[in-house]
Amino acid sequence: MSVQQNGVVVHERPSITDIMERRAKAGRLVTGIAAVSDSDMFKAPTSGKPKAKNWDSHLSPESQGRPPCILKQASGYLKVPGMISLGGGFPSSEYFPYSEISMRVPTAPAFAETDPTQLVTIGKHDIRDGTSEYDLSVALNYGQATGSPQMTRFITEHTELMFNPPYADWQICQTVGSTSALEQTVRMLCDRARKDSILTEEYTFATALETIAPLGVKAFGVQMDGEGLLPESMDQTLSEWNEDARGARKPHVLYTVPSGQNPTGATQGIQRRRDIYAVCQKHDLYIIEDEPYYYLQMPAYKAQPTAPSSSDPTSVETFIAGLVPAFLSIDVDGRVLRMDSFSKVLVPGSRLGWITASAQIVQRYQRHAEVANQGPSGFSQLMLWKLLDETWGHEGYLRWLMDLRMHYTRRRDALLAVCDEFLPREVVSWTPPSSGMFLWMKVDPAKHPDYPRRSALDIEEEIFHHAIDNGVLCARGSWFRTEPGTPASEIFFRATYASASEEAMGTAIQRLSMAIRKSFQLQ
Amino acid sequence: MSVQQNGVVVHERPSITDIMERRAKAGRLVTGIAAVSDSDMFKAPTSGKPKAKNWDSHLSPESQGRPPCILKQASGYLKVPGMISLGGGFPSSEYFPYSEISMRVPTAPAFAETDPTQLVTIGKHDIRDGTSEYDLSVALNYGQATGSPQMTRFITEHTELMFNPPYADWQICQTVGSTSALEQTVRMLCDRARKDSILTEEYTFATALETIAPLGVKAFGVQMDGEGLLPESMDQTLSEWNEDARGARKPHVLYTVPSGQNPTGATQGIQRRRDIYAVCQKHDLYIIEDEPYYYLQMPAYKAQPTAPSSSDPTSVETFIAGLVPAFLSIDVDGRVLRMDSFSKVLVPGSRLGWITASAQIVQRYQRHAEVANQGPSGFSQLMLWKLLDETWGHEGYLRWLMDLRMHYTRRRDALLAVCDEFLPREVVSWTPPSSGMFLWMKVDPAKHPDYPRRSALDIEEEIFHHAIDNGVLCARGSWFRTEPGTPASEIFFRATYASASEEAMGTAIQRLSMAIRKSFQLQ
Repeated sequence: MSVQQNGVVVHERPSITDIMERRAKAGRLVTGIAAVSDSDMFKAPTSGKPKAKNWDSHLSPESQGRPPCILKQASGYLKVPGMISLGGGFPSSEYFPYSEISMRVPTAPAFAETDPTQLVTIGKHDIRDGTSEYDLSVALNYGQATGSPQMTRFITEHTELMFNPPYADWQICQTVGSTSALEQTVRMLCDRARKDSILTEEYTFATALETIAPLGVKAFGVQMDGEGLLPESMDQTLSEWNEDARGARKPHVLYTVPSGQNPTGATQGIQRRRDIYAVCQKHDLYIIEDEPYYYLQMPAYKAQPTAPSSSDPTSVETFIAGLVPAFLSIDVDGRVLRMDSFSKVLVPGSRLGWITASAQIVQRYQRHAEVANQGPSGFSQLMLWKLLDETWGHEGYLRWLMDLRMHYTRRRDALLAVCDEFLPREVVSWTPPSSGMFLWMKVDPAKHPDYPRRSALDIEEEIFHHAIDNGVLCARGSWFRTEPGTPASEIFFRATYASASEEAMGTAIQRLSMAIRKSFQLQ
Repeated sequence: MSVQQNGVVVHERPSITDIMERRAKAGRLVTGIAAVSDSDMFKAPTSGKPKAKNWDSHLSPESQGRPPCILKQASGYLKVPGMISLGGGFPSSEYFPYSEISMRVPTAPAFAETDPTQLVTIGKHDIRDGTSEYDLSVALNYGQATGSPQMTRFITEHTELMFNPPYADWQICQTVGSTSALEQTVRMLCDRARKDSILTEEYTFATALETIAPLGVKAFGVQMDGEGLLPESMDQTLSEWNEDARGARKPHVLYTVPSGQNPTGATQGIQRRRDIYAVCQKHDLYIIEDEPYYYLQMPAYKAQPTAPSSSDPTSVETFIAGLVPAFLSIDVDGRVLRMDSFSKVLVPGSRLGWITASAQIVQRYQRHAEVANQGPSGFSQLMLWKLLDETWGHEGYLRWLMDLRMHYTRRRDALLAVCDEFLPREVVSWTPPSSGMFLWMKVDPAKHPDYPRRSALDIEEEIFHHAIDNGVLCARGSWFRTEPGTPASEIFFRATYASASEEAMGTAIQRLSMAIRKSFQLQ
């Protein structure tokens, strides 16, 4: 639905009720083995929205040269009633040695480990028997590289609910996790022979750098502040680009983690995102939006925690409205590929996520996925779908996310409290994160007795090893430097509040504090 | 154990008993989250075997440039007792919404759908509780790209039991399926800028060709007979290689499907494999051995089926000894990367397989997997491990494979019987396959009334569409041509006996027969 607001057409987000009405109207989802699907089968009409731009100029020759998978295409004939297939080598489900799978899961919205759970059972032939829309006989056979229609429907609806992209021809495609999605996307957009390069935060996810470098693609860092990357710095870097001096073509791709950035914990506010998007439009950059921590947005940190603030949302609509908008939600050009993941909000072991992008880009992605992985595990798809769609539904899943971020808020607050108590403020400083899993601690090398005789990196290494000797592992800031070949003048450590118990975090920060004090010869 | 036979050192395969004794001696496998492992932890001593050759000259610059994943490396520190990690962003398992998973599976060796099944249950904290060596808290968290130690142990032992590679430093690495393994392997060995090329069968797996082509790597076909690719033809092709004429460097890689080849169904005998290996040694080719159908080796087809022949093996040792040896089993140089898959023998939806190769190659593979997919789904690993290792054990799994191939034998025999009955012998011929899922039917274009006015491809297309109109889908032979740019003089169709019921196969072959008769204007 679209409305006029101050002369601008605004396309309203659908509600859960809208989506469930649409489903009821569409009727039961009936699919067979390796059924083809896309988001258009499940989206609201997008009339009135503009179409995405064409990205031919940004695609790599490798990606442009990808043909459709001929064997997957042939399965299109199977829609014809009565067709007998001697075509694809799909094993018969009578030889699948799993006849039933049950799982014990929380009952939304009571998610505490002490709350009563429910047992949910999946049979081999639930589709045939009319007891479910998805079963073992389909999920455990071959599928399409996009993933199953069942899971694609849930994710499409969820994406609509959360992000409501402002252009018409968006699509989702399931992935085997955002690690894989990033590698596929870099190969889709960048080419060694073209001397392509990527712009990103000056400190970024180490694995992203390890993904990009072996492809012969250079990564360049943009300066950051507490809200993440600085649009002015980005604009300047791009405007002054000198291909010879840089040894690379002017970047045509931005890779960014907008919320709870890894490693800095920084979250871009809405205006920051608008400004970055405008710079990308000006220089025609394609944006890779990597958002594993998006749902872990938290209330502001208060040094003296009180009872949960009355501003905590109680309805899922308020929760959604309170989240900082995604790049995807302001993407009128279709220049964003957003990567989502269930790793941080359900289980990392699912190795299942999804991308959202324009139909052209999703088609290129899918062509690659057909030969790179054939889509996510059927066990993962089925067990996530059974929980998210058939058991919890959209409302239940959003309640889960609302509950989960409060656990992370509690954990963050516990870590920050012990940092306040134990870390030597004279050399260590930090900004309380408002999303994600990471605290980024800055250590001032100028206060070190041996500085500048010893380098910042040298001191960082010393502290790291002192910390290991004391029994605490933190990640070194230098591991995340986008341009490790440039001189380093700063020292950082990344600590996560995701894993250890509150008690262990207290011990760990004391140990880290001792390590810093020892290196800096403080009391 | 090694013995002298006619002056040659022969390293005996271990038995299941040997393996279980080794396990008992090693004691309980104790591992935490994202535990590092490799095959050396679980292999028998390999003293006396030669080490693999070095493959630097064959690796691509992309592969050679891959650094270790710094964040995965850091988890090495977690082995230190008492270490508290604020390092990796691993979510706490208290937020995993699966507290228990149960599955109903057959009890080895009674695998019929009518046999009694058993319910196997997996808890979140079975490791902590001492009730299992693997559980939800570990499997559903992040893991290493190699996969879990639990599954690596089972696969290493299985590989030893089945293939016993004749060199010392072999390793396995789990994959997200052989589709992915092939793409990673091609990128590891081939480079567009170097004008690299790959040799393969003249008809090969269409998806393999779609994997190779976009990378700018050319594939060239070797002539085949009923036993697959011809070593003499391969030797001649390589010996006479003209880089300018071919537009590609002389191939340094062979991709082959030795058993139940897709699409031709051909299986290389032991002498054929030795001869091919010798040609690869002569021209220093690295071998990619893709073996999804290896375990589906069958007794020879008899037109008049009788009761199961008395030569069907009754012990797993006899079963193993009766299988044609793998390239991996004759690979004294470590020049083979073997790809195995659970897709055809358990469930395709697991998206889990493994490679076996030398330590150098497995390390390069792993470096790529760390950024390409992070290894297989934890749901898949756990549910396969629970069945294969903890429930069935090696003996039970081998019994499953023995049982499964007899089902495929029955299916193959049913398809061949209806082919014998219905197909017009005057234009269609075939060799009964002795492995795999596919029958390769040759149609003689010379018998067609419009030949050579109409091309072979044109007639193939006509038959295909007649068949579709009649309600049967077969795969066209031309989809599998390694060099589609060269003139085609033959017509083939590939039919699988894997999926359809015996009754449906009968109907399907009658429909195909009608389509061929219509095209050829036969009665």
